[in-house]
Amino acid sequence: MASQEIDALTMALSKLPGLGPRSARRVVLHLVKRREVELPNLIKRLEVVEQHLTACDICANVDTKNPCGVCSDPRRDDRSLCVVEEVADMWALDRSRLFAGKFHVLGGRLSAMDGVRPEDLSIDKLLARVANGGIDEIVLAMNATLEGQTTAHYLIERLEEYPVRLTQLAHGLPVGGELDYLDEGTLAQALRARRPVE
Amino acid sequence: MASQEIDALTMALSKLPGLGPRSARRVVLHLVKRREVELPNLIKRLEVVEQHLTACDICANVDTKNPCGVCSDPRRDDRSLCVVEEVADMWALDRSRLFAGKFHVLGGRLSAMDGVRPEDLSIDKLLARVANGGIDEIVLAMNATLEGQTTAHYLIERLEEYPVRLTQLAHGLPVGGELDYLDEGTLAQALRARRPVE
Repeated sequence: MASQEIDALTMALSKLPGLGPRSARRVVLHLVKRREVELPNLIKRLEVVEQHLTACDICANVDTKNPCGVCSDPRRDDRSLCVVEEVADMWALDRSRLFAGKFHVLGGRLSAMDGVRPEDLSIDKLLARVANGGIDEIVLAMNATLEGQTTAHYLIERLEEYPVRLTQLAHGLPVGGELDYLDEGTLAQALRARRPVE
Repeated sequence: MASQEIDALTMALSKLPGLGPRSARRVVLHLVKRREVELPNLIKRLEVVEQHLTACDICANVDTKNPCGVCSDPRRDDRSLCVVEEVADMWALDRSRLFAGKFHVLGGRLSAMDGVRPEDLSIDKLLARVANGGIDEIVLAMNATLEGQTTAHYLIERLEEYPVRLTQLAHGLPVGGELDYLDEGTLAQALRARRPVE
């Protein structure tokens, strides 16, 4: 039915996360119907991002400027540094607007399975930032996975020699979590880290 | 976190069907990570489609050529014409590869509620195609909705004067349908249209 060009677009869209062949087709039909306004608009937005996208030299965040919007924001606290695995993690934390400091993106996690070693991550850069001084607290915000926690432990070892306060995200029950449905690992963490009632 | 440009792209993507703010963000992150290959590739595909997209003068299908690939396909049977409401319906039927004739897209359905009248649909064009001769059968493939069926009835009235065989898609149990879960309307249709066992 659809021409080669439309098929090619459907294929390209179906490779995006969360989209399959069926939803890609629906998106194409939607764009086909709105080819006067929405299609050119989407193309322009993609082009702007493509042309200006760059990795921040300081924190490795991806943004349209360098240093990125976070690193160059004067309202942010330079003394707090939050270390995350990926840009996605940084964005997720930043959306919550609960952390007003700066970030450092490692670019992955240590993994014997995938052959990711310390030198593959942006750890030397992190140590250099810390050695540079001016940082009071480092929040290790790794994922609560085996590899994320291995990475956190490795970082703790490397960072111990610096005069900074090292903290980690709390582990425990997620909001709305029902004990009956939670895995044993989470329950164990929540129990181990139990706190006195205030 | 994200710059204005990235936010604008996320907004544009989140308006696509099947995508919300959350999945749009995931798509942006995916594209951001693959900005060397996948992002330019997607832009190119969108541009090709945008530049060449046009409505077929014969059947109103949307394609990158005019007449469209279906109308200009010599292997298709000119004597069978399938009338559908929307381009999406035409594509859905064509994907099934069960109909080897040509199509006619009405561009909607009659609807008192939405104020869609016969002159708003491509009905005159359909009658002209039929009057032109050479068509043996017209398959009315409207949706099994109230408005779709109203449109089908209206078309039957208008087409009765022509020497063509009028058929409609069968209504009844969908494949895998369990009686217990089907609505009464479908059950009534399936019972009314029951057929002798072969």
